[in-house]
Amino acid sequence: MDKHDCPFCRLERSRIRLESGSALAFLDAFPVTKGHTLVIPKRHSVDLTDTPPETCADLARIGQRIAKAARRSGLHADGNNVVINDGTAAFQTVLHIHLHVLPRQSGDKLSFAKGMLLRRDPDREETGRILREALAELDAAAQD
Amino acid sequence: MDKHDCPFCRLERSRIRLESGSALAFLDAFPVTKGHTLVIPKRHSVDLTDTPPETCADLARIGQRIAKAARRSGLHADGNNVVINDGTAAFQTVLHIHLHVLPRQSGDKLSFAKGMLLRRDPDREETGRILREALAELDAAAQD
Repeated sequence: MDKHDCPFCRLERSRIRLESGSALAFLDAFPVTKGHTLVIPKRHSVDLTDTPPETCADLARIGQRIAKAARRSGLHADGNNVVINDGTAAFQTVLHIHLHVLPRQSGDKLSFAKGMLLRRDPDREETGRILREALAELDAAAQD
Repeated sequence: MDKHDCPFCRLERSRIRLESGSALAFLDAFPVTKGHTLVIPKRHSVDLTDTPPETCADLARIGQRIAKAARRSGLHADGNNVVINDGTAAFQTVLHIHLHVLPRQSGDKLSFAKGMLLRRDPDREETGRILREALAELDAAAQD
């Protein structure tokens, strides 16, 4: 996929929730769980074969911040699945590398399976607000 | 879990395949796919809440190297799932944070599902040899 055809390279800036270093994060438009966030490089790359190691490191650092925010946020996550699907053989669909952060609740196996099919959040704006609030709290705590 | 009770803190050195920075990698004893590798911090931490961001970055960098090696190796991976299960709610079993690298083949959905149940590699030594060879080739190519 050429970067000119890449939906992640054409993201509207209003959808972006967090920028840091070489990467940025935003809520998945088709979330499996509430708060399902994608972290992508600002500069187009396809998968782990062509992404600079420092960019992979940035994806992980931001993914960690979001995972921590999801736990302390009003989403009350008890954990997170953090996933890069590297290549179509590994279920990568959009060919701009992305790291998924999937907030999880204890005992949510059934709703997780349901989320895999439904992939929607009826109140996405509120979910974004809750996560941004927790990220700001994390940043404030880090500066104490 | 205390680090004294942690199976990953008590790993025999002979099982370790790759050390770099704050992290090390080794073949999963119960692999879902051939070449299933775990990357862990050398210093005990439980999950994304207590792991230093620089260590998360190291996990990602090493995970990427292994994913690239799996593709170019005699395992002929077409892609990889790279996964951190952060917390028991997210299916984390050993409470020493670990990043999974699961080499995938195009069209392997059925054998992947079978691997989730069986979790064994009848020729683990050979799989390790193949991956180490590809890692050495990658390192040599990076120095050209």
